[in-house]
Amino acid sequence: MTETRTWVLKKRPTVDIEADTLQLTEYTLPALKDGEFLLRNILLSLDATNRIWMSDWDSYLPPVDLGAGMRGIVVGEVMESRHKDFPKGGLATGVSTWSEYVVSNGAGLQPLAAMPGLKTEDAFGVMAIAGPTAMIGLHDIGRIKKGDTVVVTAAAGAVGMLTGQIARLHGCRTIGIAGGAEKCKWLTEEFGYDHAIDYKKENVEARLKALAPDGVDVHFENVGGAMLDAGLHAMKLGGTVVICGLIASYNSTEPVPGPYNFREVIFKRLRIEGFVCLDYMAKYPEYQQQLGKWILEGKLKYRLHVVDGIEHAVDTLKLLYSGGNHGKLMVRLGADPK
Amino acid sequence: MTETRTWVLKKRPTVDIEADTLQLTEYTLPALKDGEFLLRNILLSLDATNRIWMSDWDSYLPPVDLGAGMRGIVVGEVMESRHKDFPKGGLATGVSTWSEYVVSNGAGLQPLAAMPGLKTEDAFGVMAIAGPTAMIGLHDIGRIKKGDTVVVTAAAGAVGMLTGQIARLHGCRTIGIAGGAEKCKWLTEEFGYDHAIDYKKENVEARLKALAPDGVDVHFENVGGAMLDAGLHAMKLGGTVVICGLIASYNSTEPVPGPYNFREVIFKRLRIEGFVCLDYMAKYPEYQQQLGKWILEGKLKYRLHVVDGIEHAVDTLKLLYSGGNHGKLMVRLGADPK
Repeated sequence: MTETRTWVLKKRPTVDIEADTLQLTEYTLPALKDGEFLLRNILLSLDATNRIWMSDWDSYLPPVDLGAGMRGIVVGEVMESRHKDFPKGGLATGVSTWSEYVVSNGAGLQPLAAMPGLKTEDAFGVMAIAGPTAMIGLHDIGRIKKGDTVVVTAAAGAVGMLTGQIARLHGCRTIGIAGGAEKCKWLTEEFGYDHAIDYKKENVEARLKALAPDGVDVHFENVGGAMLDAGLHAMKLGGTVVICGLIASYNSTEPVPGPYNFREVIFKRLRIEGFVCLDYMAKYPEYQQQLGKWILEGKLKYRLHVVDGIEHAVDTLKLLYSGGNHGKLMVRLGADPK
Repeated sequence: MTETRTWVLKKRPTVDIEADTLQLTEYTLPALKDGEFLLRNILLSLDATNRIWMSDWDSYLPPVDLGAGMRGIVVGEVMESRHKDFPKGGLATGVSTWSEYVVSNGAGLQPLAAMPGLKTEDAFGVMAIAGPTAMIGLHDIGRIKKGDTVVVTAAAGAVGMLTGQIARLHGCRTIGIAGGAEKCKWLTEEFGYDHAIDYKKENVEARLKALAPDGVDVHFENVGGAMLDAGLHAMKLGGTVVICGLIASYNSTEPVPGPYNFREVIFKRLRIEGFVCLDYMAKYPEYQQQLGKWILEGKLKYRLHVVDGIEHAVDTLKLLYSGGNHGKLMVRLGADPK
């Protein structure tokens, strides 16, 4: 009989996530049936989209039911198995719950081959979500070409820190936007951005015009709101705006205005296109292999922000909305496999 | 020596077009030089985009200079010519000024073959701008397919009245949105829309959900603002929003908020794409031939709203922004050729 602690969704947040939104609850898991396995979760990824899953918006996945375990992306170790695709001792990754242990039939999860030379947190932090998201946005939506000028918002965030480097590996000129001198220093000194703009201190629109006088080919948006407004003004005729995230609008009960410069979509003949990485699962193996290769070759730098202990998951998630995280945010739920 | 009256831009409008925005001015035209011809304008098209050309926004064409003749799309008759491509007695159409007569070197104009069986106002009203705009939006941007559900805003307007019929000729189901019972009656009884929604009386969002419970494939936007908000909510996953016009935001000094439901671009993985018909001049001959064929076969219905006399041009233009026009709006500047 396995005991677990699980964060259960108790109340839908209206504005911010509050003390009574989720509750850490203890369960005794049932014995395995045929076709099931016991997963010991090692790492939980915290992502802006978690806030969407708590709401009852008509979104890209059904909301988490009240009283159910909070949905999350994890990597874990198979401890016991009656499922042929998830053998004991293997790793599995994908959609699960904010739990130390789960009994799963495999839905939403895939076996994960160990990457020689990579720690679990590196493989998971870069390759599970953030890396494929950056690549889908740049290639499948943004269709970047060599020589393009690419702007990335939340450029020091989990996706943004990889997006600039990947664009640069494809011969693009990159401008990253982040908040604060420290993060902007990371952009140019660690993450290989050609230019950094500090939105807390600088006039983003003016700086974009100065850095990209001929216009921006691809704008990769993770934030929305004022960032996107500034970005639309700086676009080149026929440019592409990739909508990867709109975190500025997730903690809101009121309708949030779209970009004020929306008419640029006609003046500049823009294509604005949103995507959800889960739609592109078929491309994951190709993109993950490429990401792993770059990491091992030292071509891709990143920062991970790992907080220990399931009890800190909710407070840690909130860092995403305040910009308080310093790298790809994860919670360690258990030790790496021996 | 030819005398002409020309509307000259005197002041950039801040909010609405006012009495001193344009001034009707008399000129004596110079004698023709080599490579020039004298065009007697017959019809002037009034289009929402005229308001954009008066402003000094960074838009898709340079603003009209203060003191210059107001830019407009016309059809006219060549009265004298020293230009080999525009022989005396022929028709010419394209970008000119709000003038009775102009001396032109041909820039922005093309010769127009007379369409047997069609009056000048029909050929010009349907085929010069509105028809090609509808076809570019539906095919090149919207990529409509048989069986698609297509929503059109300002559906009784110059472009909208054609858009629904053309979509239906390609096997789409069509929903038109217009203001008032009379226009809605036109939509279903004359312009072949499957359904009409009266935005002045009905809850557009609720009606769209009821009429398209499986979602809208292509939303063809001519208005912006609240119309687009309602439309975004009704989209199908992976749907396309064609931005043809955003007339709701043209008479504004303040930044106008974009769609409040902008996050649907991610939730529904939408593509939102703007276009300017002048970018697709290469497709005009093909589209115009098809439009002419449909008109002669009686497959395309339309209403023209023709006001006589250059002196009424400014007041007539204002009808577009109040929805006071009843069909494709034009000013007759002179008689048809004999």
